[in-house]
Amino acid sequence: MATPPQTRNPELRKDPVTNRWVIFSPARAKRPSDFKSKSPENPNNNSSSSCPFCIGNEHQCAPEIFRVPPDPNWKLRVIENLYPALSRKLEHPNVQSGDSSNDLGGWGRVVPGFGFHDVVIETPVHSVQLSDLEPSEIGDVLIAYKRRIEQIKQFDSIKYIQVFKNHGASAGASMSHSHSQIIALPIVPPNVSARLDGMKEYFNQTGKCSLCEVQSKDLLINETSHFITIAPFAASFPFEIWITPRYHSSHFDELDKEKAVDLGRLLKLILKKMALQLNNPPFNFMIHDSPVQVTDSELLYSHWFLQIIPQLTGVGGFELGSGCYINPVFPDDAAKILRELNVP
Amino acid sequence: MATPPQTRNPELRKDPVTNRWVIFSPARAKRPSDFKSKSPENPNNNSSSSCPFCIGNEHQCAPEIFRVPPDPNWKLRVIENLYPALSRKLEHPNVQSGDSSNDLGGWGRVVPGFGFHDVVIETPVHSVQLSDLEPSEIGDVLIAYKRRIEQIKQFDSIKYIQVFKNHGASAGASMSHSHSQIIALPIVPPNVSARLDGMKEYFNQTGKCSLCEVQSKDLLINETSHFITIAPFAASFPFEIWITPRYHSSHFDELDKEKAVDLGRLLKLILKKMALQLNNPPFNFMIHDSPVQVTDSELLYSHWFLQIIPQLTGVGGFELGSGCYINPVFPDDAAKILRELNVP
Ligand SMILES: Nc1ncnc2c1ncn2[C@@H]1O[C@H](COP(=O)(O)OP(=O)(O)O[C@H]2O[C@H](CO)[C@@H](O)[C@H](O)[C@H]2O)[C@@H](O)[C@H]1O
Ligand SMILES: Nc1ncnc2c1ncn2[C@@H]1O[C@H](COP(=O)(O)OP(=O)(O)O[C@H]2O[C@H](CO)[C@@H](O)[C@H](O)[C@H]2O)[C@@H](O)[C@H]1O
Repeated sequence: MATPPQTRNPELRKDPVTNRWVIFSPARAKRPSDFKSKSPENPNNNSSSSCPFCIGNEHQCAPEIFRVPPDPNWKLRVIENLYPALSRKLEHPNVQSGDSSNDLGGWGRVVPGFGFHDVVIETPVHSVQLSDLEPSEIGDVLIAYKRRIEQIKQFDSIKYIQVFKNHGASAGASMSHSHSQIIALPIVPPNVSARLDGMKEYFNQTGKCSLCEVQSKDLLINETSHFITIAPFAASFPFEIWITPRYHSSHFDELDKEKAVDLGRLLKLILKKMALQLNNPPFNFMIHDSPVQVTDSELLYSHWFLQIIPQLTGVGGFELGSGCYINPVFPDDAAKILRELNVP
Repeated sequence: MATPPQTRNPELRKDPVTNRWVIFSPARAKRPSDFKSKSPENPNNNSSSSCPFCIGNEHQCAPEIFRVPPDPNWKLRVIENLYPALSRKLEHPNVQSGDSSNDLGGWGRVVPGFGFHDVVIETPVHSVQLSDLEPSEIGDVLIAYKRRIEQIKQFDSIKYIQVFKNHGASAGASMSHSHSQIIALPIVPPNVSARLDGMKEYFNQTGKCSLCEVQSKDLLINETSHFITIAPFAASFPFEIWITPRYHSSHFDELDKEKAVDLGRLLKLILKKMALQLNNPPFNFMIHDSPVQVTDSELLYSHWFLQIIPQLTGVGGFELGSGCYINPVFPDDAAKILRELNVP
C-alpha cells in the first residue's frame, strides 16, 4: 500500500469575523493529479486599439459616471457596465431588511433587479496593472470607490455595495485592461449578514470589536500608521490576505485622502509580494463593507476590511455542497513567508 | 456609444430551501471576453496501468473499506482517501451543535480535524463514466454511499456527512477514473445550517415541507415514481439541477434498493441530457442531507436532495465577496430545454 505523507495534523477553525468553518489540511497539498496541468495564465491578446477601456476608445463604452481628472487626459474613469447584472432603470423595490416581506407567490421570494453595476477603469494604459501605479495613484482609485459609494447610497433602496476586482482569466476576469467593479444591491447579501452575526457574537462575549483585536504577531505581514496586512486566522484559501484599518471604522467611505494613500502603499506592497512569491497569480480582491444602513449598536462591532484571494486552487463538490473550504496552508505559515519576503 | 443588448429584466430570487439570494441577469450572458478562450477540457492522460483506481492496482491505494461484490472481480470499491482532509486517527472532539463551546484562546475557535474522508471507485474500468453504467449499477453506487453513511454515523462526534462527485478537471477533479467522495465532519457546515433555517421558516409559515411542495410544472424536467428532476427556483448556476424524492425523507440513507435503482435511472437520464445539451461539461454533484442528529421537529421539514452543477462559468470577486451568485439563465428556460430534449 502507498504511504500517506507525514504532516501537521488537520484542524478546523472558525473565524469570528466571517463566521465560517475552514478545514486546514496540509496533507492535501501533496495529492497527485492525472489531468494534464493547466496551461499558464492566458496572456491578454488585445491591443490598445480594440480595447474599450483604453484611452481614446471612450465611445466604445457604456456611459461615463465621472473621470479623474475631469479632462481628456484622464487617469481613471468610472463608467456604467455595458452588461449590467442589475438595472438602474427599473422601479426601486422596497425590500425590508427582515426576510419575511415581499413574499411573492408563496414559494420563494422575488425582487425586481434594481441596482447599479459600474466599472472602474484604473488606468488609461492597457499594459499597466494596479500594482504598477504609485501609492498615491492607487489612493486615487480607492477615493473613486468612495466617491461612487457616496453617490449610490443616496438611493434608499440600495442596501449593500460590493466593490471588487478580478485580475486574470482564472479569477473570472473577461477584460484584461486593469479595472474593478462596483455592484449595488437592493438586499443585504448572505455573507454580509453572516459576518455581522459573527462580529456581533464576538462583541457580546468580549465587549470588543473583533477586527480591532486582530493584531496577532503570528499573522501579521506588514503595517503602516493606519492599516495592517494579515493572513486571517481561518483563511478559506491558501495565501488569502486581509488589509484592515487599525482604527475602528464601519464603512469604507470614511476613508480620507491621506489614509487612501497609506492604504495604496500597503496594497501595492502586498500585490508585489504575492506576484513574487506565487508567480504572478490571478487574484480577486473584495471590500467587505457594512450595509448602507446600520444601527448604532451595529456600529460598535462593524469594521470593514479588504480581502485578497490569489487563485491557486480550484474548488470542488465538497465546498459547493457544505460551504466549508479545505485550505492546505496554515495562515501563520503564509504570514511568515510574506512577512519575510523582500521586494526589490 | 455601444448599445447594450435587449433581454428579459434582471430579477433577484431567494430560494426557501437554500436560503440564498441569486441575481438572474440574462444580459450578462452576452458580454465579450478579450482573454483567449479556454482550451477544451483536458483529456485524461492516464492509462489503466498507472491509475491506482483501476482494477489490478488495488495495492497503490489507501486501505479498502469494502468492495461490491466482495471478491477479486469487484464492481465498486470504497477506500480511504490517501490524502485525507480530516484524520480518522485523531481524538474525537465533542463539538456542541451550539456555536459557543470550545472557544480556545478567545479569538476564533479551533477543533481537532477528526473525521473521515473516503473515495468511492464507481467502476473497475478507467474509460467508463458514471452515466455509462446501467441504472441498477448506479443504484449500487448509491447503496454504497448509504452503507458507508450508516457505518460512519455510529461515531457520535460526526455531525454531518457530505457525499459529492467531481467530474472533469475544471470541476476540481484531480483523478479522471470515475469516482465520488464522502467527507464526514465533526461540525454542521454553514450551508447546511442555512438550509435548515430556510426550510424551517417555510414550514413555520405554511405548515408544509418546502421540498414536498416543489413540484412546479415550469421547473419540472423529468419524473419517476419516487423522484423528480427539476431546475430549482433560485438556481445559483446556469443549468443547475436538483433530483429530490417525491416522498418526504429527511436522510439519504433511508433509500432502499428499489428506490436506488429508480434514482439511478433518473440520474443517468439527466447526466446524458446534460452531456448532450451542454457539450459534455465538467460537473459536480452533491447530496444535500440532514445533519446526523436532528430533532423530531426538524424531521418535519428536512428533506434531502441531490444537486448537479455543470461547470459552465467561473465565479469572480462579486460572488466571493457577497455570497450572491449571478445566473444568466432563468431556471424555467433551462427546465424547458432539458425537459424537451430527447436522448437517443
Ligand atoms: N464596452 C464596455 N463598456 C462598459 N462595460 C463593459 C464593456 N465591455 C465589457 N464591459 C464589462 O466589463 C466587465 C469586466 O469585468 P471582469 O473582467 O472583472 O469580469 P466579468 O464581470 O466579465 O465577470 C466575472 O465577474 C463576475 C462578478 O464576480 C462573475 O459573475 C463572472 O462569473 C466572472 O467571470 C464585464 O462585467 C463587462 O460586462
Ligand atoms: N492512491 C490513492 N488512494 C486513495 N486515494 C487517492 C489516491 N490517489 C489519489 N487519491 C485521492 O483521490 C481523490 C480524487 O478526488 P477528486 O479527483 O474528486 O478531487 P480532489 O479531492 O483531488 O480535489 C477536488 O475536490 C476537493 C473537495 O471538493 C477540493 O478541495 C479541491 O480543490 C478539488 O480540486 C483525491 O482527494 C486524492 O486525495
